[in-house]
Amino acid sequence: MRIPRLAPEWTTTEWLNTSEPLTLERLRGRVVLLHAFQMLCPGCVTRGIPQAQRVAEYFSHEPLVVVGLHTVFEHHEAMRVESLRAFLHEYRVRFPVGVDAPDPAGGFIPRTMKAYAMQGTPTTVLIDGDGRIRQQTFGVHDDLRLGAALAQLLSELRGARHSAVDGATLEPKRFGCDEDGCANR
Amino acid sequence: MRIPRLAPEWTTTEWLNTSEPLTLERLRGRVVLLHAFQMLCPGCVTRGIPQAQRVAEYFSHEPLVVVGLHTVFEHHEAMRVESLRAFLHEYRVRFPVGVDAPDPAGGFIPRTMKAYAMQGTPTTVLIDGDGRIRQQTFGVHDDLRLGAALAQLLSELRGARHSAVDGATLEPKRFGCDEDGCANR
Amino acid sequence: MRIPRLAPEWTTTEWLNTSEPLTLERLRGRVVLLHAFQMLCPGCVTRGIPQAQRVAEYFSHEPLVVVGLHTVFEHHEAMRVESLRAFLHEYRVRFPVGVDAPDPAGGFIPRTMKAYAMQGTPTTVLIDGDGRIRQQTFGVHDDLRLGAALAQLLSELRGARHSAVDGATLEPKRFGCDEDGCANR
Amino acid sequence: MRIPRLAPEWTTTEWLNTSEPLTLERLRGRVVLLHAFQMLCPGCVTRGIPQAQRVAEYFSHEPLVVVGLHTVFEHHEAMRVESLRAFLHEYRVRFPVGVDAPDPAGGFIPRTMKAYAMQGTPTTVLIDGDGRIRQQTFGVHDDLRLGAALAQLLSELRGARHSAVDGATLEPKRFGCDEDGCANR
Repeated sequence: MRIPRLAPEWTTTEWLNTSEPLTLERLRGRVVLLHAFQMLCPGCVTRGIPQAQRVAEYFSHEPLVVVGLHTVFEHHEAMRVESLRAFLHEYRVRFPVGVDAPDPAGGFIPRTMKAYAMQGTPTTVLIDGDGRIRQQTFGVHDDLRLGAALAQLLSELRGARHSAVDGATLEPKRFGCDEDGCANR
Repeated sequence: MRIPRLAPEWTTTEWLNTSEPLTLERLRGRVVLLHAFQMLCPGCVTRGIPQAQRVAEYFSHEPLVVVGLHTVFEHHEAMRVESLRAFLHEYRVRFPVGVDAPDPAGGFIPRTMKAYAMQGTPTTVLIDGDGRIRQQTFGVHDDLRLGAALAQLLSELRGARHSAVDGATLEPKRFGCDEDGCANR
Repeated sequence: MRIPRLAPEWTTTEWLNTSEPLTLERLRGRVVLLHAFQMLCPGCVTRGIPQAQRVAEYFSHEPLVVVGLHTVFEHHEAMRVESLRAFLHEYRVRFPVGVDAPDPAGGFIPRTMKAYAMQGTPTTVLIDGDGRIRQQTFGVHDDLRLGAALAQLLSELRGARHSAVDGATLEPKRFGCDEDGCANR
Repeated sequence: MRIPRLAPEWTTTEWLNTSEPLTLERLRGRVVLLHAFQMLCPGCVTRGIPQAQRVAEYFSHEPLVVVGLHTVFEHHEAMRVESLRAFLHEYRVRFPVGVDAPDPAGGFIPRTMKAYAMQGTPTTVLIDGDGRIRQQTFGVHDDLRLGAALAQLLSELRGARHSAVDGATLEPKRFGCDEDGCANR
């Protein structure tokens, strides 16, 4: 059996969308989705970030936190914090975003990215309530798998005592068919 | 607190994609996703059925069964079993599909559809390991919510002892950026 | 130089969505988009037919006619005219659709499909104002190419004297950015 | 009858993806698609620029030129030329892009954007072979309309003598159906 390792603490130079820096230690007891991205990475912009936004919205009533990490490893001059700030504004990213600290030895890969051995962007890390890395994915998950993985981590938090499966139904708009389906009344 | 009701047994005239009829009773101990559809319902064809297929594929190693139900409530002559059979073949639907039995009193709504008080197609019913209806949705779920709901029901089955969250990562194909993301090595 | 051949006349058993049968001869002087499909062909349903519908709508003020042809070459029992009629109703197909006549020798391929040497469905045939086949495509075009090809045939009709390029602009809804763009006032 | 006005000459500070600055005067005799965008405008990134790239690729053998114009009217510090250069690299934008010159009076709207009275980004301007504005659209066109408009302008150039409608067909991959369609041989 593979024992998940403790997620390394983040090393950042700045935080946006939050009044104070976030630390993993203070997020114990909650599930954390860490989304590492670069603002000029097409796969992040068109798929990764929108997915992180959907997660933040859908699980907003759960003990789950979505945290962005700007892990610039190329075109450093092009993605400075003023550009990132405008990017978050225009793309309506509301979750907190930390700026990964540069390598003190002058390398291209920033410090947190290195500590997690990330292979590129986007990378999505799922961290459980005990602060352990349970899944780290380079590229984009599909929503079905990601939803399932997050619900599993949440059910572990709860000991599966309370169910998040509700009975909500979508009300049909009218008799007949539209692109959503066909109503019988 | 709302107590989920026991899912009514299905009343069918025929089964496709299975050597013998399925009953809810025999599926106890497993999570069931019941997907009610009509082969000429656009929302079913373009969104509902592909989603049910993704669920069947992704959860194929879990105690979870996807069952289709052909609940024709309009254009009965146009959706007879020969047409359904060809439809399942062309759309590569592999999960078992039952044909809902017609109303003996001659009404439009078939029997199982009526027993579940479904409002139209597609309708997705999530049934837990004890045979209770936990969620019934008319229209199309998003994948994130559906994945989360199914994982929750699976974790209840297991008592959340064993985790389905694995550590799989997507391998980067090459250095540089493509539509999936940017690799750093 | 390749001389386009005259489009063979259609041989049909029935017409839907029109009060009287259509013939190529009576459509001379207009551009014709002939869309050959089967109601149980997934590529037709999800991509080909929606594209033909967009063409019918966009070019509704031009001398251009979209004509459907139901060319069943497999599962004949599953796609009889009652099923086709329900299909057209549910998918809101409004353009005229002819039912291709069966091979009198009992072969699988219907007569018009054979006369055009179509390779399968969907097949889109562009016929110019003189009744000549100018393009025949198996599979799905992209919209940019199809729009360009149709406009070219229309400009030949007109002798390119009158321009269909208008000056319409999309009005911005509000200041700021949304998924359509960013407005400056 | 509305007489199209002559497209104002561009006023730029820099050009990328080209060895020398482009002027409208030197592009006479060709159709020009001018795509005005901002690198942090979501609608430009996800829809407008990909469409301009498709046009550049599809019409590469025609007398048609796609020209980008970076018309920054907000977050000026965030979208400087170093950032734009990295953006074009990561998004694989190959067509020439001019940087619109700032307002000498210190206003937010850059000079070319003002000269064309653009309402925001993306804006697509179609300029005919005589240098006249034939269509200016704020927001995103659909491909069918844009393909038709460009083909119309090209046919005017040629006097509609030579046809760009070829007879290309997509070869079926195999017998049976896939997401593109159903083959009969």
